[in-house]
Amino acid sequence: MARMNLINQEIDKYLLTNAGEPPVLYEAAYHLIRAGGKRLRSLLILLSCEAVGGKVEEVLPITVAAELIQTASLIRDDMIDRDDFRRGVETVHKKYGNDVAMLAADLLIAQGIRMVGQYGTTELLQHVGAAGVEMCEGEALDVLTEKKADRVLNMERYIDTVRRKTVAFIDASTKIGSLIGKATKVQQEALAQYAASFGIAFQIRDDIMDVTSSQEVTGKSVRSDLRWIRSNYPLIVALESCSTTKRTECLEALSEGSIGEALDLIHETGAVDLAMRSAEDYVEAAKLALRGHGFPNEHLLRQLADSVLEREY
Amino acid sequence: MARMNLINQEIDKYLLTNAGEPPVLYEAAYHLIRAGGKRLRSLLILLSCEAVGGKVEEVLPITVAAELIQTASLIRDDMIDRDDFRRGVETVHKKYGNDVAMLAADLLIAQGIRMVGQYGTTELLQHVGAAGVEMCEGEALDVLTEKKADRVLNMERYIDTVRRKTVAFIDASTKIGSLIGKATKVQQEALAQYAASFGIAFQIRDDIMDVTSSQEVTGKSVRSDLRWIRSNYPLIVALESCSTTKRTECLEALSEGSIGEALDLIHETGAVDLAMRSAEDYVEAAKLALRGHGFPNEHLLRQLADSVLEREY
Repeated sequence: MARMNLINQEIDKYLLTNAGEPPVLYEAAYHLIRAGGKRLRSLLILLSCEAVGGKVEEVLPITVAAELIQTASLIRDDMIDRDDFRRGVETVHKKYGNDVAMLAADLLIAQGIRMVGQYGTTELLQHVGAAGVEMCEGEALDVLTEKKADRVLNMERYIDTVRRKTVAFIDASTKIGSLIGKATKVQQEALAQYAASFGIAFQIRDDIMDVTSSQEVTGKSVRSDLRWIRSNYPLIVALESCSTTKRTECLEALSEGSIGEALDLIHETGAVDLAMRSAEDYVEAAKLALRGHGFPNEHLLRQLADSVLEREY
Repeated sequence: MARMNLINQEIDKYLLTNAGEPPVLYEAAYHLIRAGGKRLRSLLILLSCEAVGGKVEEVLPITVAAELIQTASLIRDDMIDRDDFRRGVETVHKKYGNDVAMLAADLLIAQGIRMVGQYGTTELLQHVGAAGVEMCEGEALDVLTEKKADRVLNMERYIDTVRRKTVAFIDASTKIGSLIGKATKVQQEALAQYAASFGIAFQIRDDIMDVTSSQEVTGKSVRSDLRWIRSNYPLIVALESCSTTKRTECLEALSEGSIGEALDLIHETGAVDLAMRSAEDYVEAAKLALRGHGFPNEHLLRQLADSVLEREY
């Protein structure tokens, strides 16, 4: 995709011209960005801007800011999940230690803020800040599910957590892109609806990979959701479609650190297929939200939504 | 000080009206703010704004944003130093665990960003972001001094580290206040000079307390600089005024985790008195920078500088 190349070029340019001291801090901060990534938030910003008639040049620096901030949140997530791999390489805290990893994440946030100050508006900033607040809330809701598995592994809580943890930043991305492109209220609303469904589909697919895929394929540690008893869509589906006895057994096993029972239950209940079907529904809903607004790049936004279902990492 | 009360009222109002979910995340984020604090950055913003003719009401929300971001950096510093006490209470990671502490710090940064978006300008934001980058660099320079004590415990490196770690945010505070107050370039420059000297004096006083005071008096863990071989002014002065043999012995002892030798050396060389004299010099330089600009509250800015020398916590 030509736009992906544009974004990657802009990111490369930024990394090359923004080195500093001490070098190890910058190596740690740029480690995951250099390892690649889907650049999903960047693409959403760029496509949302173009959808409403904005120019690529106006929005490119902000796509870099989004990537910086997104990477900071990945560094933090990996620390919290004690994961060792991401994007096919060692996680930042694993490679550089916790102290450097924390500072690297802060550095990326500060760099992102500085860029929004240079190329953005205070309105954009409010969206970035508000999304940041929601991301922290969502992650905290997820982290604090430990030892309270029964109360939190349910669908209502899941949607609430995902809305904050994942959807907020995806929503902010379309908002930022469309604001830079000077969208009308109606256009903004359509893209917000697209983002809301897109984000949930994205998270469900992520959850599926966590329980079905391998580190070789995804490039990152898997089964984290089970090991830490986090919100996970197939797991919740499985727990909701089995007997109370089974549910209790499975939760007890998870609390004791044994994930085999949960994997069996997910298999027996066909939860992965059910989850995949839900993800497809959300992708359809996302594409539906785009209709009738005459977005010139509607096909690209549709493609991006479809890619969520196909992605293997 | 009436202005301190204004700031504390504004902070209280913010904390009361900005609770969220999960409650423990917000408790952790507000824990140190509620425990008190010098509100030094807030006071600098407010006084710098008033100095150039700005109004208190225009600047108050931004003083809260500064306090939120400053608190985030304290949470992180305490995690890195593994300190147990701050402002007379348990540190955030000690009380709530590392995961919640990390998210609480991120939440405070996101809240601070959101406020700058609401009440500030993109120009302010650039200063906040740039200061954030420098703070991370300074902290990283300091953290990475471990095991390389001989190379880094020297005065040149000290000033470089402190400029980033401490002065950057103090400088940003005067800049933000004076920008909101619509300062001239000359006024901005005078306040920047004030901030540069003020910041170094502040850090030297901090370093002195680390090696001379007690947790009962300062409300926070002490001797951290020695335990972790961080930049510390009296320690550097002591190392520079003793024989090479003594220096080597002291550094070796520190590397092995023994701080008694360093404390003896600091005592023998009168390093604390020398450090205090330097701090006084910097305070004088800070006050000198204010002269001749007709700042109506020059006496308050002078008082604030003097308070750096007298502070016991």
